[in-house]
Order: sequence, then C-alpha cells, then structure tokens
Amino acid sequence: MPQTLTDAPLDQLFRQARTYNAFSGEVSDDTLRQLYDLLKWGPTTSNSCPARFVFVKSAEAKARLGPALDEGNYRKTMAAPATVIVAYDLAFYEKLPVLFPHTDARSWFDTKPEADLTTIALRNGSLQGAYLILAARALGLDCGPMSGFDNAQVDAAFFAGTSLRSNFLVNLGHGDPGSIFARSPRLGFDEVCRIE
Amino acid sequence: MPQTLTDAPLDQLFRQARTYNAFSGEVSDDTLRQLYDLLKWGPTTSNSCPARFVFVKSAEAKARLGPALDEGNYRKTMAAPATVIVAYDLAFYEKLPVLFPHTDARSWFDTKPEADLTTIALRNGSLQGAYLILAARALGLDCGPMSGFDNAQVDAAFFAGTSLRSNFLVNLGHGDPGSIFARSPRLGFDEVCRIE
Repeated sequence: MPQTLTDAPLDQLFRQARTYNAFSGEVSDDTLRQLYDLLKWGPTTSNSCPARFVFVKSAEAKARLGPALDEGNYRKTMAAPATVIVAYDLAFYEKLPVLFPHTDARSWFDTKPEADLTTIALRNGSLQGAYLILAARALGLDCGPMSGFDNAQVDAAFFAGTSLRSNFLVNLGHGDPGSIFARSPRLGFDEVCRIE
Repeated sequence: MPQTLTDAPLDQLFRQARTYNAFSGEVSDDTLRQLYDLLKWGPTTSNSCPARFVFVKSAEAKARLGPALDEGNYRKTMAAPATVIVAYDLAFYEKLPVLFPHTDARSWFDTKPEADLTTIALRNGSLQGAYLILAARALGLDCGPMSGFDNAQVDAAFFAGTSLRSNFLVNLGHGDPGSIFARSPRLGFDEVCRIE
C-alpha cells in the first residue's frame, strides 16, 4: 500500500513550488521527452488524452508566439528557455481506437456537438496541463503558467486548419528567486470545502 | 535548485498509479484537510482558485448523489470511502480581494459574460482537480475520477440556488488491485508533441 511521501517531495511539488517570472538554464529535448513520459500517465475521461503540446524553444517560434501575448507576459516568455503551448484536440475521439481499444469508445463522442466536445477537451486537457506542471516540478524544473494571451491568435499562428485549440501557456526553466514576490494567500478549508 | 525526484515518488504519482474501480479503508476528515492543504498551493489564473470541493462520505449524501450517476459508476461510488464532487464557483472573482490583494483583480472578471467565466472556471477548476488527484496519490490514497454522471442533477442536489457548478467526481480510498485491468495505452511523444 502506498505511503505518504516525505516532506521533501511534497515541498517540491506543492508547498514550496512557486510561479516564477524569470528563468535560466536550458531545457533539453531529452528533458521534454521525460516530461511527457511522466505526464502521459495521468487519468482522463475514457483515457481520451486530448491534450497536445507544442514546446516553443527556437527564436523563430518565439517570434510567432510573441504578438499574441499580453504585455505583462511578453518579456518573460521571450526570455524563457522553453514555453509550452498546452492545447487540446477537438477531434480527440479519433485516437480512441488506440487509447480505449476494448470497445467502440469513438462512437460515444464523434456525434457530439462542438460545444460538448469543447467542454470535454477543456476539462481533460486542463487536467493534463496540471499533470505537466507537477511532472515538470517533479523533474526539478520550475513553471510559469499563463492564460494572459489571445487564444485565437495563437491558434492562427500554430494550429491553422486543424482541430487543435490553445488552452494555456507554461514557461519552463530554473526559476529565479528574485523574480517572485511574497506568496499570495489561499482560502481556508472551510471556505471552499464541505464534508457531507 | 530542485532535483529530479527519485523513482519511488515518480512511480507513486504517475507511472504506477491507476484509476481503481473498488476501494477499501477509511478516509478521515483529517486526511481530507491534509489533502486540501497540499492541493491549494497549485497555480491558477490570477490565483483565482475557483474550485470548490464536497467530500461525500455519509449514507445520506451518497443517496443524494446516487441517482445522478451513470449505471457503470453507481455501485463503485456508493461503496467508496469518500467521493469528491470537484466543482467550481462561477462567482470566483468575489474572493479576489483576498486572493490577489495587491490590485483590483476583481474588476478583470466581474463584468465578463457567463460563457467566459465558465471557460475560466472550468480551466482552472480542472487544474485544481488534477492537483487533488496527485495530492491524494502523494498522501498514499488511490483515486477513481469520473465524468460519467448528470452534472445538472448533481448541481440541483448539492448546489441549488448558488453559483457553484459540478465539474467531475473522484472516488477516494485504498484501491483494490483486483478491480483494474491491464493498463490502457498512451500516445507516443511524436503523436502529441512537437518541439519548435
């Protein structure tokens, strides 16, 4: 039976992890593959795994991303070793014959209206985005997730003519402790939870 | 600088963790508080923390939840030590004076149309749902996340007259290894990722 992890990993994953505004170091292609090989195991509806990931590292790709960013996110993103576009595929059901092979799971989704598919892909693609954040921290990386950007502009620059849609962005690297302020508060258990 | 975690926590969180269909044991109220005290640190847009959690443990509350469940999720949920209703608050911005105190962040959201608020709350509430799943695993618990239920029926039974909406459910306990099948495949890096 699994036990509670020790304080060191709990601190690294949750308690001491912060959203950084400046990063240094390199994020190798090998590290990105290790990152995917962890996050891919996280659970999704019918194992649908709708998230798709673009790892933006080159100056050319950064230049395509830049104009879509809110002003406050521009400089830090251009300077980050890597920026992940966490996206989802609205046609995720096309992969279900591989992902859920023991029955015709494709037919559960392929006639749904786009609004329903968007809800399912946003829910599960966001779960996978959180798996990416925690997997990155587990690999010793720091993260800077952002939703301050123009999704339609990113979709036009990276996903034109496809069923992929951007969800949010995550800067990756080694966080500069000088780039963060005191930690913002969280709500108490009794404000957001009930036991019934 | 943080290092890569050792194999044991990576296995517990990602590689060996499974979605169980039967659970044993107890999940104490104290454990639920420990769970929230980890997951609450995960990042969200403007620290908005829109997720709300109902931990369904009593026979009375289980009986209210039951009729909303798809048939395939009924028996295992009724038998689970605890079932979390992962919800989000569409009026999450009301808490921003506490959560993001250094500027008027409430005004960034409080005039947005409900469709936009739903997207933001679903994205960030799902991130927090994934933090809950991984925090539960970090505490030695197993999870059974589900979206096979009638959201409107759960909302009527648990959130009537409020701005809370159900997102997905998670059974919690100690997973019975006899309740799972061989692991389903995942897509390869090159099918879902690109490095640009």
